[in-house]
Amino acid sequence: MRVLVLGADGYLGWPTAIRFSAAGHEVMAVDNYLRRDLCRKHDVESLFTPPNLHERTRIWEESGGGRIRVRIGDCCDYAFLSAVFAEFRPEAVVHYAEQPSAPFSMLDHAAASLTLRNNLQATQNVAWAVRENCPGCHIVKLGTMGVYGTPNIDIEEGWIEIVHKGRRDRFLFPRQASSFYHTTKIQDTDMLWFYVRTWGLRVTDLQQGPVYGIETDETERDERLRTIFNYDEIFGTVLNRFVVQAVAGVPLTVYGKGGQTRGYINIRDTIRCIELSVANSAAAGELRIFNQVTETFSVNELAEKVARVGRARGHTVRIDHLENPRVEKEKHYYNPVYSGLKELGLDPHLLTDEVLDSMFAVVEENQDRIRPERILRGIKWR
Amino acid sequence: MRVLVLGADGYLGWPTAIRFSAAGHEVMAVDNYLRRDLCRKHDVESLFTPPNLHERTRIWEESGGGRIRVRIGDCCDYAFLSAVFAEFRPEAVVHYAEQPSAPFSMLDHAAASLTLRNNLQATQNVAWAVRENCPGCHIVKLGTMGVYGTPNIDIEEGWIEIVHKGRRDRFLFPRQASSFYHTTKIQDTDMLWFYVRTWGLRVTDLQQGPVYGIETDETERDERLRTIFNYDEIFGTVLNRFVVQAVAGVPLTVYGKGGQTRGYINIRDTIRCIELSVANSAAAGELRIFNQVTETFSVNELAEKVARVGRARGHTVRIDHLENPRVEKEKHYYNPVYSGLKELGLDPHLLTDEVLDSMFAVVEENQDRIRPERILRGIKWR
Repeated sequence: MRVLVLGADGYLGWPTAIRFSAAGHEVMAVDNYLRRDLCRKHDVESLFTPPNLHERTRIWEESGGGRIRVRIGDCCDYAFLSAVFAEFRPEAVVHYAEQPSAPFSMLDHAAASLTLRNNLQATQNVAWAVRENCPGCHIVKLGTMGVYGTPNIDIEEGWIEIVHKGRRDRFLFPRQASSFYHTTKIQDTDMLWFYVRTWGLRVTDLQQGPVYGIETDETERDERLRTIFNYDEIFGTVLNRFVVQAVAGVPLTVYGKGGQTRGYINIRDTIRCIELSVANSAAAGELRIFNQVTETFSVNELAEKVARVGRARGHTVRIDHLENPRVEKEKHYYNPVYSGLKELGLDPHLLTDEVLDSMFAVVEENQDRIRPERILRGIKWR
Repeated sequence: MRVLVLGADGYLGWPTAIRFSAAGHEVMAVDNYLRRDLCRKHDVESLFTPPNLHERTRIWEESGGGRIRVRIGDCCDYAFLSAVFAEFRPEAVVHYAEQPSAPFSMLDHAAASLTLRNNLQATQNVAWAVRENCPGCHIVKLGTMGVYGTPNIDIEEGWIEIVHKGRRDRFLFPRQASSFYHTTKIQDTDMLWFYVRTWGLRVTDLQQGPVYGIETDETERDERLRTIFNYDEIFGTVLNRFVVQAVAGVPLTVYGKGGQTRGYINIRDTIRCIELSVANSAAAGELRIFNQVTETFSVNELAEKVARVGRARGHTVRIDHLENPRVEKEKHYYNPVYSGLKELGLDPHLLTDEVLDSMFAVVEENQDRIRPERILRGIKWR
């Protein structure tokens, strides 16, 4: 199958690209290095610096992987993106090409505008490029569990039947997100849902929880194949940051009371979910939504797990409760459904001590590269 | 009160600006002539061409109105917009500065992108400009009833309590719009709702139905004060177009079976609703939503009313059913609630024969300016 990966240089994009290549698919990888540029600008670079996208695909091919074609350009540039679709004629496109950081989107007006423009224009361009070049192409777009916020009802997989004054209808599950970034993910779903209804596109929207982990089966072949790994407040996800804080000997930073509960997922399972979604296409005219998490934890539970494993490895681990910079409930109901991807065949890698141990091992190898002053940046929601 | 009107050159913006001026408020009027530029580009100009915004404010002042300050610029340009807020420090801002045409948003990729960028960047800039310059300023944003689509349940005023698996919570009413333009109005509400929750902004979102009519109390003072009046498929609303078709002796164009039912409102009531919303501010941290319509009709009912009044005035009126260029249900349940604005004091001007007669009179005066070939442009949703 011809699989186009947009945002293929990113934390998830790269392991996705090489997974499809390993499985024998024809892959084209697109990126404009926005993520790396923002990390450099804000002095929050990855723990280790992967080679550029062209170079990593060469290393991948030398390591026995297939050939991956690379196109460097901006998905917000419709002339560029449409030409990519016209040339490659993908059967599936995995769309990661969005600014993925909640704190970044709250930094200032310029960062919020970049997030708005980038995330929505890229998604609109994908819809149009599919329609104009390959209308049967299956769009697999990454969303986030953050779109739902913390409602006082069970979170279904994207859809809900509402009974109101004796009548009923089916709607997108209500969403109210906890950052501006997450809000753009509400907006891109609404946009795709409109084009699905109007043009009969095929779309899978994956509402993913925070991802943790470093290695996948493919990146393990060569350490130069490792994906970008951020450990800072802006681009680092919480568990990855905690492991780095534990190794660096600085306190794990829990925001507020730490009762905030979310669904989490191992990067190995993310890649598997993408694979399963592509292998089982949404129908024409269908917006299929999965909640892409495998278990839920409070922030306190995560911190305690990291502290326990870290201490067993000889680290001195402290946990600090900071004043919460975000606007969010610190104690709330949280009960998401996440059965759809398991029904497609996902066999989850849960957050065991072994998984944490393997993350610690990679971070310890790179201990001298950690810059603790990069971790906290003081971004406030208000 | 200091009232800032964004999009003040438009069909509703101009009568809004002079109403507030007539009532003794201090008014600043902002526009970048986007609407006029698009109308000229697509050869769908207004039935009569109003003077430019500076000139119309001079005519207004000479006719006994107050002084209205004018600033010409793009609300998507944050440096410009923020300077306007810093200078004027409005207590209320009426935000019409969005691309308002559904067919335009379906024209091609460029038009869809313009709609996306313009409508969301302008709204984001308004939220930031308020926060950074005058956080207590009440934002009155125009939305559209089109965001709701045609659900099989009663349409509440913006909010709904959902009971699900024995638990309950309150959410934005589910929305699924019937054009890309309308989708941007879902997106701007989600954006403002996020900033309301996070920053405590005051926002009123007015989900308005298609507006009809030409004159308001203020525009009647001098015919040069008349607002822009489009009668084409792109920028003309349905009833206005029907009246022009009747006068021009071309068939009224009903899309499909004509059972599509919507809520409608007289332009006089629109202006009154804005006035009432500004006079009764939303609270800090409140997103208040009203459904801004006064009665519902099917397209067939509108066509029949126009035909009856037109024939009584001596016109030969035919009704044609065209293949529906849109993707929409032609027979559906439709029961919106619209009591909030009446509770604030709205006394509706309903669509009587007298109202239609007065519209016919103005169009007949301008009969020789009608260009029938401008009316239908063949824009298709698919």
